[in-house]
Amino acid sequence: MSDRLQLVFIGTGASIPSPRRRLCCLAVERDGEWLLCDCGEGTQFHLSRNSISPGKIQHIFISHLHGDHIFGLPGLLATMQMLERSQPLTLWGPPELATYIHWLQKHELLTLGYPLVIEQLPLGAVEQRQAGPFAVTSAPLSHRIPCLGYRLQEKEKPGIFDAPKAEKLAIPFGSERKQLQNGKAIVLADGRKVEPAELVGAPRPGRSIVFCTDTRPCIAGRGLAQDCDVLIHDSTFGPADKNRARQTGHSTSTEAAKLARLAGAKQLVLWHISGRYTPEEEEAMTKRAAAIFPAVLLPQDDLNLQVPRRMVQ
Amino acid sequence: MSDRLQLVFIGTGASIPSPRRRLCCLAVERDGEWLLCDCGEGTQFHLSRNSISPGKIQHIFISHLHGDHIFGLPGLLATMQMLERSQPLTLWGPPELATYIHWLQKHELLTLGYPLVIEQLPLGAVEQRQAGPFAVTSAPLSHRIPCLGYRLQEKEKPGIFDAPKAEKLAIPFGSERKQLQNGKAIVLADGRKVEPAELVGAPRPGRSIVFCTDTRPCIAGRGLAQDCDVLIHDSTFGPADKNRARQTGHSTSTEAAKLARLAGAKQLVLWHISGRYTPEEEEAMTKRAAAIFPAVLLPQDDLNLQVPRRMVQ
Repeated sequence: MSDRLQLVFIGTGASIPSPRRRLCCLAVERDGEWLLCDCGEGTQFHLSRNSISPGKIQHIFISHLHGDHIFGLPGLLATMQMLERSQPLTLWGPPELATYIHWLQKHELLTLGYPLVIEQLPLGAVEQRQAGPFAVTSAPLSHRIPCLGYRLQEKEKPGIFDAPKAEKLAIPFGSERKQLQNGKAIVLADGRKVEPAELVGAPRPGRSIVFCTDTRPCIAGRGLAQDCDVLIHDSTFGPADKNRARQTGHSTSTEAAKLARLAGAKQLVLWHISGRYTPEEEEAMTKRAAAIFPAVLLPQDDLNLQVPRRMVQ
Repeated sequence: MSDRLQLVFIGTGASIPSPRRRLCCLAVERDGEWLLCDCGEGTQFHLSRNSISPGKIQHIFISHLHGDHIFGLPGLLATMQMLERSQPLTLWGPPELATYIHWLQKHELLTLGYPLVIEQLPLGAVEQRQAGPFAVTSAPLSHRIPCLGYRLQEKEKPGIFDAPKAEKLAIPFGSERKQLQNGKAIVLADGRKVEPAELVGAPRPGRSIVFCTDTRPCIAGRGLAQDCDVLIHDSTFGPADKNRARQTGHSTSTEAAKLARLAGAKQLVLWHISGRYTPEEEEAMTKRAAAIFPAVLLPQDDLNLQVPRRMVQ
């Protein structure tokens, strides 16, 4: 089993597709299993362009029911059916998501043979659930309509086993070593007692991805992002358009950088970028954000980001 | 005013988008005004790639409510709104189309500021209406769910005015010539009577586009296609898969060619091509169809076809 956690930025644009940016979708892979955050129109084509098979997607998290975040969902669900999917798929989102999907099913716009589980998340409270390898926290953000932010938190991993030292202490291969790795002390045949701390390093913390779009900078978003590895945050506008950001329930790149700094995130990804900006303007936005929070990235569509596990001293 | 009538084959594939074929959409232009037949997911991106501005689309005809024919519609309508459209748009289709769009509007998945007119067409009868420059005939096809075929019939154009002969007969410029062109006899100042037939050729027939997908070959489709200029017909499968075509309510390329021949169409476009076929298999399908009906075309996405006006002897 590999320890890979990667993000593929399928669609990084806002509202209207532009020649440079598609509609909203983030794909997350952990050890061959995929999940999506949002599913703008065209997602199924762009997954295929990134060699991400719909059959490998286990979970889809939906932030809110604006078209640029969900109009790719019915087509993707239908394609999974036509590819003869049999394993379950879980959709996560606001209660209206279930209403929408059930309506499409009732009117035979969607006819699915595989189990579709819809997990309705509350709009007024922080909620914790388990989704595959991730503990998921959802929280209500601050947008024009009800909208959820998500934190995907990997479990911690046991510390590294010091094999050379185990050799030196003549600890046999097999159950003894396994017990130590599982945190249990052992007594060897010669009577020596060995504690796990002698051979096993500190547990390695799980990684965390936080997806906060569409939203004003808000307390709930900051709470989700606390000490996370990667924060993907609404950055629809540049700092000069901050009034427009406020009016439309979005954030500027500068506001996203300030929130990332306050939350102690390790990496910020500027997200949901308006099609109005030129590449030069995007570069200027990124530089201004970097003055506040240096580990900032404004990705192009299809960019791939590997999330390393943090080293423990 | 130009006399252009062109077809742009935006998406020529069936059911699932393949790397070579997108989902169903035909764009039709007459003198700068556009209409669409069907609107599969991604239509708005591919219109933009063909420099077709959503603002120039006046009518959208929907054949039936299968996802590969309509899941691009909500996104396109939303984009028209974001581009601040003000002029009306007319949607044509089965009654369920109105139910779908009204549901999206009621749940604020679509919020439109421009007038959206939904023309509900009957599922059990042939219907005639007017849509911009076209007389539209709809008729129920033979698919797994209710599905409409469309004939778009241009008006005939007055015959060509013989300007050299008018000069010879010393017919003054202005109202006299206009009257002749409008089919009325005139009396000149010197008492000569001139009949329009002396100077104006036979009226030039309007052109006709027939869109029949998804469907088995059927009487209604043949009726729509009678003597048409271009017949775009379901050809999901090759002749070897004729049982599958029958089971799924589609046609083979051979069946489409037979229907085009019976109907006396001038040009057949094989349409809604399954992604299962290689380019070589498609070529073989086309050759077999051409043995039955020579003026056959199996288009690639984005191909552009100019429809000439027929010459009258």
